[in-house]
Amino acid sequence: MASTTATVGMVGAGQLARMTHAAATALGVRLRVLAAAETDAAAQVVPHAVVGDWTSLGDLRAFAAGCDAVTFDHELVDPAHLDALAADGVPLAPPPSAKRFAQDKLYQRRVLADAGLPVPAFTEVDAPADLRAFGDTHGWPAVLKAVRGGYDGRGVWVVEGPDAIDGPWDEARHAGPLLVEGHVPIATELAVLTARTASGDTAVYPVVETVQRGGICTETIAPARIDADTAHRAAELGRSVADAVGAVGVCAVELFAAADGELTVNELALRPHNSGHWTIEGAVTSQFANHLRAVLGWPLGATQLTGAATATVNLLGPADGSDPAERVTDALTAPAAHIHLYGKDARPGRKLGHVTVVDDHPEAALGTARRAAAILHGERLPA
Amino acid sequence: MASTTATVGMVGAGQLARMTHAAATALGVRLRVLAAAETDAAAQVVPHAVVGDWTSLGDLRAFAAGCDAVTFDHELVDPAHLDALAADGVPLAPPPSAKRFAQDKLYQRRVLADAGLPVPAFTEVDAPADLRAFGDTHGWPAVLKAVRGGYDGRGVWVVEGPDAIDGPWDEARHAGPLLVEGHVPIATELAVLTARTASGDTAVYPVVETVQRGGICTETIAPARIDADTAHRAAELGRSVADAVGAVGVCAVELFAAADGELTVNELALRPHNSGHWTIEGAVTSQFANHLRAVLGWPLGATQLTGAATATVNLLGPADGSDPAERVTDALTAPAAHIHLYGKDARPGRKLGHVTVVDDHPEAALGTARRAAAILHGERLPA
Repeated sequence: MASTTATVGMVGAGQLARMTHAAATALGVRLRVLAAAETDAAAQVVPHAVVGDWTSLGDLRAFAAGCDAVTFDHELVDPAHLDALAADGVPLAPPPSAKRFAQDKLYQRRVLADAGLPVPAFTEVDAPADLRAFGDTHGWPAVLKAVRGGYDGRGVWVVEGPDAIDGPWDEARHAGPLLVEGHVPIATELAVLTARTASGDTAVYPVVETVQRGGICTETIAPARIDADTAHRAAELGRSVADAVGAVGVCAVELFAAADGELTVNELALRPHNSGHWTIEGAVTSQFANHLRAVLGWPLGATQLTGAATATVNLLGPADGSDPAERVTDALTAPAAHIHLYGKDARPGRKLGHVTVVDDHPEAALGTARRAAAILHGERLPA
Repeated sequence: MASTTATVGMVGAGQLARMTHAAATALGVRLRVLAAAETDAAAQVVPHAVVGDWTSLGDLRAFAAGCDAVTFDHELVDPAHLDALAADGVPLAPPPSAKRFAQDKLYQRRVLADAGLPVPAFTEVDAPADLRAFGDTHGWPAVLKAVRGGYDGRGVWVVEGPDAIDGPWDEARHAGPLLVEGHVPIATELAVLTARTASGDTAVYPVVETVQRGGICTETIAPARIDADTAHRAAELGRSVADAVGAVGVCAVELFAAADGELTVNELALRPHNSGHWTIEGAVTSQFANHLRAVLGWPLGATQLTGAATATVNLLGPADGSDPAERVTDALTAPAAHIHLYGKDARPGRKLGHVTVVDDHPEAALGTARRAAAILHGERLPA
């Protein structure tokens, strides 16, 4: 026999589920994962991974049986399936009503705008003429987005002006329903993570600064190097969004901060998020532990920083297709670098791991993390 | 396909292997465990646990096949089997020559004493008369110990005086070869953890203070509340012992400190150790990560403290047989407490988990950890 505090099912078996397993182990929580294959990042490290198809309601039903909470490492499960599972009484966390905010950007914009929360100007578009009219009213460039399924830079097209509509439109029209948003002038990109229970308890992490390249988060610095007032408003906005959404578990809110400190909600995720990987070493309680605690309705853990500053650099697959894992021993020569590898086959641009460093100064943390990541990437370092 | 940096086999699947899995996951290391049963603490959280018998050379051989390093979560494997595996070319870490120091206390005392390292007065004893002669020479009480297999207070008998020999002797004579040691006056018990590679690279953790009850470590405080000179000498002694032993992996040295600061080596372990659980949150690199790095010959991680002070309280099975896991949600109301449960069935006195707290002050850390542990134990707290 074993002593287990709870059983949590996670739909999806990528790196988020992989990293959740460590937190589950400490808490005595049995983590089950629904994997597409036994080689999925989490399936490699979690016993008895269930291999199945998250697009199949039957597979989802079978997977959920016996779980105290069922949660997700992605946003892709069919909303109709979520509704059906909820109707069965499956303890989904977040519930479908919250998950919809991350699955349907038009719905999200409408509800957040109605709640008085700052989102860019937006409208649904059915034809190039709608896009042109929006740009002429709100200014160019405009940002065309897929309503569903976009992430990591996919499903987003910047339209520079009225003469540059055709190219993006030809690509975008295959992506299902579309919306257009005003282009927000960005001084800094921020992210706020909140863990929230179904009963409304929340724990907000310090606001992080994110660096994006090609729509993919490549670096985070915690705490963000912004003034205290902006940090305070960002944290409150993150909490307000989590409440408005009815989040259960981690809610990640990506924000644009303008030069004057004005904040706009960019993207939402209702799950542990790339912008929170720094919390494993950089916060008292990791986002993965707090996600589990939140989905189970347990008391939430402290979100304070463990050190003055924490930097995380994502490890994307090198262009030459080589595997950073082959260079791990070289990178470990940086004794304070926390290297996390996800066990995934190397492909150019794929998220394969990350490096976190806690230090007294953000620039020092970032420098050490970048150096270790560069070694893993196989870059030549300056002598 | 999966991307793996190395495969490490761990003989034994208790809590040490369980906690090693999290470190292995981050490093992209595939951890294999040799478990007695699928319900063993580590077998619950590691995929494809090999169920086998570590007393069988055949099972050990089959388990070791394909591992880049084979290490241990206990000291109990037959030395003859270790020699046979080493002769096969199995990359044992630590090697049998080092493991012997933790398996044969008489050998350990002789070699350390010959190396000029401080051990208590000791001698082999074959009969009560040997014990009496030792006590009459070195003073009473004397400490009778099993040469092999003793740990957590087992295999140790304190003999108060020449008239109190019979009782202990009647018990001890069933425990195989025996030695007797002089009783060391103890002001503080300390432990020093060192990670060491086969090529002699070492990383020494800050010295910790340990509190023992009934021979079981119940609390640790890092750093130890001792003067800087004693801390320095203890760290150097830990490193010297690891070198003398030829340790590969973590080497835990338990020390007695007298009121005048004199240090004496008490016990050794050649594996991650209970006195190092605090390193998961309290040190930059956990003992589990550094054990893996050391057994693989990889660069070692930084051992500095992450905060000013870290306290860990062990969770022993309550006398009423109840399971602390049932009270986990109550204990998590201490938001900064890191609760680790091992998934083991509750039995009175059994190590079931631990609680770690990092704080600015050791007393505050200890207070919070004790409070969370008391809740898990089911104790009534003062209002």
